[in-house]
Amino acid sequence: MDDQVAPPVPEPPDPEGIFARRTLLGVMGVAFGGALGVAVLGATRNLPVAAAAAAPTATPAAVDHSLHAAASPVPSGSPVDHDAQMEAAVTAFPAKTRGIGLQELSSTVVDGAREFRLTCAPLQWEVTPGVVVNGLAFNGQIPGPIIRATEGERIRVIVQNDLAESTGVHWHGQRVPSSQDGVPFLTQPPIKPGATYVYEFTAGPFGSHMYHSHHNATEQVGLGMLGPLIVVPKERTVDPSFDKDELFILNDALGGFTINGKGFPATAPYTATLGQRIRFRFMNEGQGIHPVHLHGLTFEVFARDGYPLPAPFRCDTLNVAPGERWDAIVVADAVGAWAFHCHILGHAEGRTGMFGMVTALLVSA
Amino acid sequence: MDDQVAPPVPEPPDPEGIFARRTLLGVMGVAFGGALGVAVLGATRNLPVAAAAAAPTATPAAVDHSLHAAASPVPSGSPVDHDAQMEAAVTAFPAKTRGIGLQELSSTVVDGAREFRLTCAPLQWEVTPGVVVNGLAFNGQIPGPIIRATEGERIRVIVQNDLAESTGVHWHGQRVPSSQDGVPFLTQPPIKPGATYVYEFTAGPFGSHMYHSHHNATEQVGLGMLGPLIVVPKERTVDPSFDKDELFILNDALGGFTINGKGFPATAPYTATLGQRIRFRFMNEGQGIHPVHLHGLTFEVFARDGYPLPAPFRCDTLNVAPGERWDAIVVADAVGAWAFHCHILGHAEGRTGMFGMVTALLVSA
Amino acid sequence: MDDQVAPPVPEPPDPEGIFARRTLLGVMGVAFGGALGVAVLGATRNLPVAAAAAAPTATPAAVDHSLHAAASPVPSGSPVDHDAQMEAAVTAFPAKTRGIGLQELSSTVVDGAREFRLTCAPLQWEVTPGVVVNGLAFNGQIPGPIIRATEGERIRVIVQNDLAESTGVHWHGQRVPSSQDGVPFLTQPPIKPGATYVYEFTAGPFGSHMYHSHHNATEQVGLGMLGPLIVVPKERTVDPSFDKDELFILNDALGGFTINGKGFPATAPYTATLGQRIRFRFMNEGQGIHPVHLHGLTFEVFARDGYPLPAPFRCDTLNVAPGERWDAIVVADAVGAWAFHCHILGHAEGRTGMFGMVTALLVSA
Repeated sequence: MDDQVAPPVPEPPDPEGIFARRTLLGVMGVAFGGALGVAVLGATRNLPVAAAAAAPTATPAAVDHSLHAAASPVPSGSPVDHDAQMEAAVTAFPAKTRGIGLQELSSTVVDGAREFRLTCAPLQWEVTPGVVVNGLAFNGQIPGPIIRATEGERIRVIVQNDLAESTGVHWHGQRVPSSQDGVPFLTQPPIKPGATYVYEFTAGPFGSHMYHSHHNATEQVGLGMLGPLIVVPKERTVDPSFDKDELFILNDALGGFTINGKGFPATAPYTATLGQRIRFRFMNEGQGIHPVHLHGLTFEVFARDGYPLPAPFRCDTLNVAPGERWDAIVVADAVGAWAFHCHILGHAEGRTGMFGMVTALLVSA
Repeated sequence: MDDQVAPPVPEPPDPEGIFARRTLLGVMGVAFGGALGVAVLGATRNLPVAAAAAAPTATPAAVDHSLHAAASPVPSGSPVDHDAQMEAAVTAFPAKTRGIGLQELSSTVVDGAREFRLTCAPLQWEVTPGVVVNGLAFNGQIPGPIIRATEGERIRVIVQNDLAESTGVHWHGQRVPSSQDGVPFLTQPPIKPGATYVYEFTAGPFGSHMYHSHHNATEQVGLGMLGPLIVVPKERTVDPSFDKDELFILNDALGGFTINGKGFPATAPYTATLGQRIRFRFMNEGQGIHPVHLHGLTFEVFARDGYPLPAPFRCDTLNVAPGERWDAIVVADAVGAWAFHCHILGHAEGRTGMFGMVTALLVSA
Repeated sequence: MDDQVAPPVPEPPDPEGIFARRTLLGVMGVAFGGALGVAVLGATRNLPVAAAAAAPTATPAAVDHSLHAAASPVPSGSPVDHDAQMEAAVTAFPAKTRGIGLQELSSTVVDGAREFRLTCAPLQWEVTPGVVVNGLAFNGQIPGPIIRATEGERIRVIVQNDLAESTGVHWHGQRVPSSQDGVPFLTQPPIKPGATYVYEFTAGPFGSHMYHSHHNATEQVGLGMLGPLIVVPKERTVDPSFDKDELFILNDALGGFTINGKGFPATAPYTATLGQRIRFRFMNEGQGIHPVHLHGLTFEVFARDGYPLPAPFRCDTLNVAPGERWDAIVVADAVGAWAFHCHILGHAEGRTGMFGMVTALLVSA
């Protein structure tokens, strides 16, 4: 090992990224006053929903939205329960849980290759507060850490198998030599329990890719052995410009329906300030489609499986099938708390309120 | 209320539209004579299948299509039952049921905004003849009435909740202020039973959008609380030209697999005369994908979630995922009775014949 | 019958096509030596994986991929079983089974029309070695034989029904006269058991289409009554160039998850030599989506339901919904054994190893 370097990062560090958000919003709560008011208490600043509440710009003062909102006696029974549970879930959002996935994986350059280390092992994973499941993980994270490299760069990944069973790692979307493709018995022997295996290839094509187990994979990937492999293009101009770079990884086995390894209300909200351009990298590591719907804003979809689309398109509901990756820019051009969820409603809400594949994009002024 | 006006309609009124069709085809029957003959009795004119039967233009007279069609003794058992049930279903099409969804919602302009009224209430809904289910509806219709406005126009929707539980209405695809977005506890308090709530926003973006419950939504939308929100572009030239404007709304909870709230044979057929251009607005309010297949003609798909596609494409099977809307032109350039159904065959046909997500496009000369 | 002619074939005959492959690879085995070695024994030549093993070009000699691969004692229990079963399945690939679908259907020109004959009958079909299921088939094949014609050519198909139940044949994607569309009771009487029925129409539009039962279709198509209908464009230049023309037909009822009627390890691998351009015609005749993922290479998707895409795109995971057809070119520009499978992992791998919708593309130098 000759040098210890930070991984290449395509954009300026994101101070309000996926990890900072938890701190920022850790004490966030939602409450309604006499008038429609969404009180959001941020650690360092007022968040957009507070701004929206203070200045409901599009609503003439004459309109009383709570016209008869409390006019009727509330009947007893399940509707009340639903409201109470719903309120509790939204108030708890973002709920604190142990464990954070998608941490940037550090690397060192050794013998001309950027070297990463992955260790596979069982992991107790808290999906929502108090719900701890038996997962399988890379580096104690679900999803696994972010492997980030630049197109054309030589990559080496040393995989240590501390599972009780064999495995193999596939670099989904990368054009690696067949011998490095990670399919046990077809392109390599399985990595036995206790063994270490070394993969090496040149990063490419650029874009949003994935790594995951390709051995007993329904179970191993379902239980958490997956992560993002981001290849930054050599020529940055092939990408549209963006201010923030976010991951949105869907899964539907371990602990139910999850975004980035957590279920609502433990999902982390995304944040932006008015006018920022956010790049979302949607990836589906589950067994079913998940059409992701963002309220109030627009997806400008520009890449599919990492490949730039010849005809980028706009939409508000983006269907992501298993194994697919889609890249979209969202211009945060409207302040608000925008729900962001799978539109298969049964993956997002039930009689006990919202759960699973629900988060929000919070845009502040 | 200062004036009482008809809602803006983007095209000349459609005399053979979704409501007239029922009358037109109410006595439609299908029968086969000695030669292949599909007798369709229309109230006001011969329908295309009759024309096709009378002049099977593409079939040389020398070809006897019923060559040995009755040559064999019919074996007893389930095949006979299937044929009989299938024939009964097709003969019954379009079967009469109580209740029609998708009626145009009237509006009045009040204080500079076009004002619509929606009332949510339980509803007994007849999905197919004799099959009545316990639904939840807007204005006693499933799907709810058509809210139609022009891009840039101010809209006010007064929602009266006559359900036994709380609700909230989301304007799916519209870029409304966060406070008007309809997500209880996140952007507003829930609308309690007996209460009235007022939403107000500027219509946009244009295109095919939806409104639906966003509270206990798996259940409320599944049971019928959904409808179309059509925003006509200010500049009509952004749309391709069309002669008819039709809705094709998919759902898969209440009463099974439905198109516009009804299951085959109670689905309403679409009609056109030769050469007409029909705009279809496909919307999926269900929990699963529904790839819609039209026989014999071609979809020219030009918009996704309301946004014009930069590269419109052609196909005959259009996969519509939950939450998505797709707009396509069908040029009715061939006379016939064209089956039009979800191509997940289990949503359209079983051992008892066709059911669920099946209808037809009837093109007459 | 005035002449007996070979069907039009768009490209030079493919000596290593779907039928030859079985012979070529019949004795293929996979084994690992002391170094990573994939020994592939071809009847007539070394196959690509052997070449890759002999010259692992992208892996520096200094890297020992089997670093500790046998370092640990193997624990007893299911992991061992999984490995053994996985190895057995991959070693058996491609496993020999009785019955081959997708044989080119011969035709004769009679009275100005190219005449094909299809016979529907029950069939015992071996899906994987030893797994024989009760199917329904055209001409004793699942999928049925390839019907191939040229755009604008007159086609006649004589269908003999030797089933115990009625049927009807739909030409999915073809713009036929309504009377030839194959929907019993809507456009024709059902074809009774023992009867013969004649369809006649002009082939078009060009591209990748299908024929299948449209009567009791969930069951009849599910059990095997489906096949490809390929219409070669009059102007060959509307297609990109290709060296090989391959079918990839998905189904998910009869015998589980199948590609071209077989489940892994009985699926036939695709083969190519370095630099060849392979056209894949993906067709979904099943009940669910199947996102097809090809390792190591890239799809250049150029047509949807036969219609050329105005903006062809690249991807590595192509979601194919029921009823859809997609055409893609794969440039075989990297030697290797490339896994090729549905990325709904539960359709491809379980605790007993890979099964179902798995095959490979073998690229040799």
